[in-house]
Amino acid sequence: MKTRRQRGEEIRREVMSDPFVDRALNNSNDFDAPLQELVMETAWGTVWDRDDLPRATRSLVTIAMLAAMKCSNELKGHVRGALRNGCSVEEIRGVLLHAVPYIGAPASLEAFRSAREVIEEFEKAQQADAE
Amino acid sequence: MKTRRQRGEEIRREVMSDPFVDRALNNSNDFDAPLQELVMETAWGTVWDRDDLPRATRSLVTIAMLAAMKCSNELKGHVRGALRNGCSVEEIRGVLLHAVPYIGAPASLEAFRSAREVIEEFEKAQQADAE
Amino acid sequence: MKTRRQRGEEIRREVMSDPFVDRALNNSNDFDAPLQELVMETAWGTVWDRDDLPRATRSLVTIAMLAAMKCSNELKGHVRGALRNGCSVEEIRGVLLHAVPYIGAPASLEAFRSAREVIEEFEKAQQADAE
Amino acid sequence: MKTRRQRGEEIRREVMSDPFVDRALNNSNDFDAPLQELVMETAWGTVWDRDDLPRATRSLVTIAMLAAMKCSNELKGHVRGALRNGCSVEEIRGVLLHAVPYIGAPASLEAFRSAREVIEEFEKAQQADAE
Amino acid sequence: MKTRRQRGEEIRREVMSDPFVDRALNNSNDFDAPLQELVMETAWGTVWDRDDLPRATRSLVTIAMLAAMKCSNELKGHVRGALRNGCSVEEIRGVLLHAVPYIGAPASLEAFRSAREVIEEFEKAQQADAE
Amino acid sequence: MKTRRQRGEEIRREVMSDPFVDRALNNSNDFDAPLQELVMETAWGTVWDRDDLPRATRSLVTIAMLAAMKCSNELKGHVRGALRNGCSVEEIRGVLLHAVPYIGAPASLEAFRSAREVIEEFEKAQQADAE
Repeated sequence: MKTRRQRGEEIRREVMSDPFVDRALNNSNDFDAPLQELVMETAWGTVWDRDDLPRATRSLVTIAMLAAMKCSNELKGHVRGALRNGCSVEEIRGVLLHAVPYIGAPASLEAFRSAREVIEEFEKAQQADAE
Repeated sequence: MKTRRQRGEEIRREVMSDPFVDRALNNSNDFDAPLQELVMETAWGTVWDRDDLPRATRSLVTIAMLAAMKCSNELKGHVRGALRNGCSVEEIRGVLLHAVPYIGAPASLEAFRSAREVIEEFEKAQQADAE
Repeated sequence: MKTRRQRGEEIRREVMSDPFVDRALNNSNDFDAPLQELVMETAWGTVWDRDDLPRATRSLVTIAMLAAMKCSNELKGHVRGALRNGCSVEEIRGVLLHAVPYIGAPASLEAFRSAREVIEEFEKAQQADAE
Repeated sequence: MKTRRQRGEEIRREVMSDPFVDRALNNSNDFDAPLQELVMETAWGTVWDRDDLPRATRSLVTIAMLAAMKCSNELKGHVRGALRNGCSVEEIRGVLLHAVPYIGAPASLEAFRSAREVIEEFEKAQQADAE
Repeated sequence: MKTRRQRGEEIRREVMSDPFVDRALNNSNDFDAPLQELVMETAWGTVWDRDDLPRATRSLVTIAMLAAMKCSNELKGHVRGALRNGCSVEEIRGVLLHAVPYIGAPASLEAFRSAREVIEEFEKAQQADAE
Repeated sequence: MKTRRQRGEEIRREVMSDPFVDRALNNSNDFDAPLQELVMETAWGTVWDRDDLPRATRSLVTIAMLAAMKCSNELKGHVRGALRNGCSVEEIRGVLLHAVPYIGAPASLEAFRSAREVIEEFEKAQQADAE
């Protein structure tokens, strides 16, 4: 049976992509390697492995929390993850618009700026694939 | 055609129940009546009226943001709304467990305490109906 | 010349009333007396003593920050202070309504609940005086 | 009669300047255009249109909340708006100094850094005009 | 070898006391039992089991974060834990006073109110023991 | 006897280094000089001058709060200060790992990114000295 740590890495790779996880692991050094291990085990290897919510819903819920907490960097990663988990651009936008009356306009504007960067990259990549 | 204000009250009644909205409106006085109007128009009459997300997803996303912002009072209202919008207790719990590695254990413990109160009332009411 | 500590207590008494400050000081014990001293000196004896803003504006600005930070207890104290500093109920309400699109509806609803308690006490006291 | 949306754009142009609003609208794309509409209607077209506070006070109160929420980008915009609404540099500084004991030194230092950039641009532009 | 879950419960019992953990576990129901398990495993069974900081330092650092996040309920638990981990009342007060210029006076006042309740109970219990 | 302002500058220089404080003072202009004075007096000249906690503990506690509040800029300064106050890299990492279950993974990842920059500079400088 897989350990939480192994299961965590597996799920993180499925959601965030191999290049993303490879980069996170390769960039880590003595100082922050234990953080990568802790996040892999206690975030990806626990709640993302539960079956009470579909992954696409987890992605939308994660985006909502990251917008509320104004964590732009992590938000970008999870917008990418949401697209990989099958969420449409319209759903992601729907969550960020839904946030406006709850978290306020300033936090929402910040979230939109970060999300838009990722969406634009994604749409360019799709166009390039189509050509 | 309905105004945003009218549409907002209609949706709020569907999601939060007539008794809840009646209480909010009847309890409002000169001081906070303009707040009730503003919330009805700019929260319920706008984003809740969009069709880019199903209402059950809006409920789960709202619960996630309220947990992240530690707004216990509003969280209780929206756990009730989530149950009315067809979310199961398992899905609501799934969102709050998913929040643990993102918002931290202390904020999650607070959210669970508030949500549990509403879930217990709801389950008692269901049992009473069944008898 | 007065020390910051002395000047702080003087201003705090003017803004928050003698009974309020007496209660804060009398209720303090060995554990939190140093906090009372620190707050008197580094909040009331510094920025409240500057002349770049009228006191009524300071009150409104303080209420806005406390609403944004969801500090209900302190908000109540400063709504009382605002009324003593000559702010009208309409201005206080104006600030809290202005906050809605910035800090979001949930934080604003919490702020209104706290402010309303103080406004109601204040209006009762005024009526009693008038009779 | 103007709609909230129309009134919102009008007020936003008065407070934030035509070039600022033109840029915001021209930069918006399919993804974030609905956010621009929502903000125009539910922030600028509602509370900024109320007459219970002078615009200069609204600006100061907004700056206070944005400092408390650490929204640097929006803070810069509203420091510009405050200057256009007739607030002096001394009043803006007064609000940010007043914030120190309430929101803490770290958030205040961040707010000062952002505000200073805008103030410096503004003073350069004034000098250029004077020459 | 003990699992993280087992080690977590062991450490939590050492820090928070048996009655505290028994109460937490006995009070949990179907809804929040998975939260108790998750917290035991991913908070108590991981970072509290590291040997890079003495437990007393962990307690002080935890109190500082809970004060910054305004989590009063959890703060009370960890003030109790700090006393059990050998921190003196003076050190706990030292941390909360140190917080004032960083998190601001309002959040600090809230933290002091919560901590004081626990300190008073503790000092009463000590006096009763001494008699 | 030294004033709080003088004592504050002295302590700030000991903790943050002369070049750091010189830079902060030299960079300040008419707009933000009063902030520098206020911070020197009400943060460095008060709580950092108390003897209820060793300076190394103050550093760790400060880092914990800055991570919780997501103040990256200030966090970097205080990681430098912690190293000057005699904290080891292992202790600083211990605090940031300890934060993960409390403040959540996204805020912790942000704190690690900022801290790592400072640690790397510090280790390079040490190596250069050794050569």
